[in-house]
Amino acid sequence: MDSANALLQQFIDIVGPAHALTAAADIEPYLVEGRGLYHGASPLVLKPGSTEEVAAILKLASATGTPIVPAGGRTGLVGGQVPREESRDVVLSLERMNRIREVDTVGDVIVVDGGCILADVQKAAEAHERLFPLSLGSEGSCRIGGNLSTNAGGTAVLAYGNMRQLCLGLEVVLPTGEIWDGLRRLKKDNSCYDLRDLFIGAEGTLGVITGAVLKLFPRPRGRQVAFAGLRSPADALALFERASVLCGTALTGFELMPRIGVEFTTRHIPGVRDPLDTAHDWYALIDISTSDSAETAEAMITTLMEQAFEADLVQDAVIAASLAQQDALWHMRESMSEAQKPEGGSIKHDVSVPVARIPQFLDEAGAAVTAAMPGARICAFGHLGDGNIHYNISQPVGADKAAFIGRWREINAIVHAIVRKAGGSISAEHGVGQLKRDELIATRPAIETELMNRIKQAFDPAGIMNPGKMVSPQ
Amino acid sequence: MDSANALLQQFIDIVGPAHALTAAADIEPYLVEGRGLYHGASPLVLKPGSTEEVAAILKLASATGTPIVPAGGRTGLVGGQVPREESRDVVLSLERMNRIREVDTVGDVIVVDGGCILADVQKAAEAHERLFPLSLGSEGSCRIGGNLSTNAGGTAVLAYGNMRQLCLGLEVVLPTGEIWDGLRRLKKDNSCYDLRDLFIGAEGTLGVITGAVLKLFPRPRGRQVAFAGLRSPADALALFERASVLCGTALTGFELMPRIGVEFTTRHIPGVRDPLDTAHDWYALIDISTSDSAETAEAMITTLMEQAFEADLVQDAVIAASLAQQDALWHMRESMSEAQKPEGGSIKHDVSVPVARIPQFLDEAGAAVTAAMPGARICAFGHLGDGNIHYNISQPVGADKAAFIGRWREINAIVHAIVRKAGGSISAEHGVGQLKRDELIATRPAIETELMNRIKQAFDPAGIMNPGKMVSPQ
Repeated sequence: MDSANALLQQFIDIVGPAHALTAAADIEPYLVEGRGLYHGASPLVLKPGSTEEVAAILKLASATGTPIVPAGGRTGLVGGQVPREESRDVVLSLERMNRIREVDTVGDVIVVDGGCILADVQKAAEAHERLFPLSLGSEGSCRIGGNLSTNAGGTAVLAYGNMRQLCLGLEVVLPTGEIWDGLRRLKKDNSCYDLRDLFIGAEGTLGVITGAVLKLFPRPRGRQVAFAGLRSPADALALFERASVLCGTALTGFELMPRIGVEFTTRHIPGVRDPLDTAHDWYALIDISTSDSAETAEAMITTLMEQAFEADLVQDAVIAASLAQQDALWHMRESMSEAQKPEGGSIKHDVSVPVARIPQFLDEAGAAVTAAMPGARICAFGHLGDGNIHYNISQPVGADKAAFIGRWREINAIVHAIVRKAGGSISAEHGVGQLKRDELIATRPAIETELMNRIKQAFDPAGIMNPGKMVSPQ
Repeated sequence: MDSANALLQQFIDIVGPAHALTAAADIEPYLVEGRGLYHGASPLVLKPGSTEEVAAILKLASATGTPIVPAGGRTGLVGGQVPREESRDVVLSLERMNRIREVDTVGDVIVVDGGCILADVQKAAEAHERLFPLSLGSEGSCRIGGNLSTNAGGTAVLAYGNMRQLCLGLEVVLPTGEIWDGLRRLKKDNSCYDLRDLFIGAEGTLGVITGAVLKLFPRPRGRQVAFAGLRSPADALALFERASVLCGTALTGFELMPRIGVEFTTRHIPGVRDPLDTAHDWYALIDISTSDSAETAEAMITTLMEQAFEADLVQDAVIAASLAQQDALWHMRESMSEAQKPEGGSIKHDVSVPVARIPQFLDEAGAAVTAAMPGARICAFGHLGDGNIHYNISQPVGADKAAFIGRWREINAIVHAIVRKAGGSISAEHGVGQLKRDELIATRPAIETELMNRIKQAFDPAGIMNPGKMVSPQ
């Protein structure tokens, strides 16, 4: 056995051979991601069964300088979960650490392993008449450690915040193998620097999240979902403002969609039909959830729609009359990305700007993209209430897909320049990973990258954690 | 001019002589804090007028190894704002940097200088029909930079969160004099480690917060305040649970108070009278704010009180019939600390435990304190909904005040041991400062202090920022 294999064997011994993958075919699924943008290499996948095993792995990795790539549900969209090309990176999968450790309905918290699947956490909360509000397209397979490491957002951020707001405490294995037991369930604690929020959103570059205390909420008693046809993003913004004032924190979702997105979904997604009789340039999906009673939600949606028609902000609208209709409206929104696939290649952006600047951003970006690429079909949709737009561009009809995709960086540069001018972020919710690392290093204030590098060095002196992702190469 | 004075003159030249204090009598107010626990020394107070002047001061300080103590409204309760004893620490006061830079009612944010007084921020929001929800006893004099540096909480945390949740972006001058312009107004941004939340709550040990983007909220349309007499903290907890489920995020305050606190306030605070006809062992102050209408708040408080009486959780209650009565109920709560002063010395604790463990904590701590000090009068009150109790102990009637205060550390040790056993924090909202630094170093997980020290070293290699506070001495 050569020394490289001897080292791998030491890692395998920690978890036991039954929980280590060494055959290329078994490892392959851990080397790719959904969009096919990245394809890495790795000699070994480890599936530890406990925090102590994770600690032993990282201790050995730090001592031997072995790069470690943490993997959760591997649904990330920026290549953060994929080992580097031609690397000897070892994949550390949390998939076996998927226990719900405790549901506390008095303290309204749930304590989970880092490898729990999001949908399982939602179900455990539901079984106790509570709500865990994080909700996103991949909830059936993404895992809490990944949700935390990417500070996941999703469709309920408006009312409940993103993962950073939903987490009270963490258990983290540091790159050195030390375990930080920060599994607090306190609403207030000013006794330390905010280590928790440093690990959240660090994309596995500062340690491995093995456990978390998450907040639970009362299940809403009333819910109303409306779908409105609008003239413009400016009208959508005005409608959002009214909805905010009228509903306050009961406004749990406000999504913007373009006509082309409705066309794509009705064309390609089975069962989706246009909820309105005539076509409109833009649409808003409005979700209201009330804690006191169903009547409050009803009264809110009725008042909002009356006000909106009176102010000529809405051209036509439908209020879902049943749970099934509510689901159908959300299904249209959530399959919008999927519905672009049959239309050919798509170049994507996950950007945010201050909410008030969305109309101007859409105008400027639309003009610039169309000028650079006549016929480009812009399908910009997303969480208007969060200022977060998934600015997706489908290829011109009949264009060559490879040539179109080849212009990814060029189009990114055009859109991102407009985002930066508006004080926005080019990585609103999907994170940095490999996809945006270099562009962010080139464009964010130099002092930010400098501080990130200093923190990385302080936490991971051996540079083993998820190398090549998020921060500068070391 | 000796070299020490020559150095001070260099600092004075940055702000101009009109904005530097060098006379002992002028400096004196910056050397003390409200409780009289600390008395520091300093040769110089600087009052810069701009972020650039702050940067020049810190650059010079780093180059010359001059310790800098940032000062805001100086209302902190842990000695974080006071220079060290017998030190040459230079005080950097933000008091001249008190501009409201912008109020954006579309994006619902307010951009302010670090030296803005909290009440001025509240008023600016009000003038634009918005709410800035941070509210605490010292709001007339505390300043935003201090609120951020201590991650201030207060009475509205239940619904709106503490300062960390209320802030979108920061402008910080680093110890090296570099300026980090993180004045983003984005609801979502996953493009960097969470530097913002690292500076928030760092008590000025990592840099000086010179500007901030803060969230604004719709002004509530309905508000109801109730005051209820209860048998026990267990009943208060059960009532809180019902209120949470019934009201959701409309429950903006839930405060617990003991009988002795009501006695102290009615005895010593002019105008305060017992709102109920008979005495009860415990009381809850319940605040409900609704965004949609006044009727919703009315319906909620009525339903809650009906349910509470029916379940025998509440013995007697009053619902405030006017704004003046609402203010009077809150005034009683907010003057509870003040009302202890005429009763002699008081030993204080600012602790949090998981909400569900509050009754048990109060039982255990009460028994232990009374055993150690017969006759001790425990006035434990606070934010039950946040698990945050101000566990204050007034001296036994007729006891010697100095001898009583001399037992501060001993009594702290008793109470804090019970807090730790319950998974709680001994610094829930007031912070660490000088008061709790050594106890936290001795009792928190060693890896936490180690990580704090590494971060401190990475951000402030010269060790100039607020030395002796929060982190280990360097």
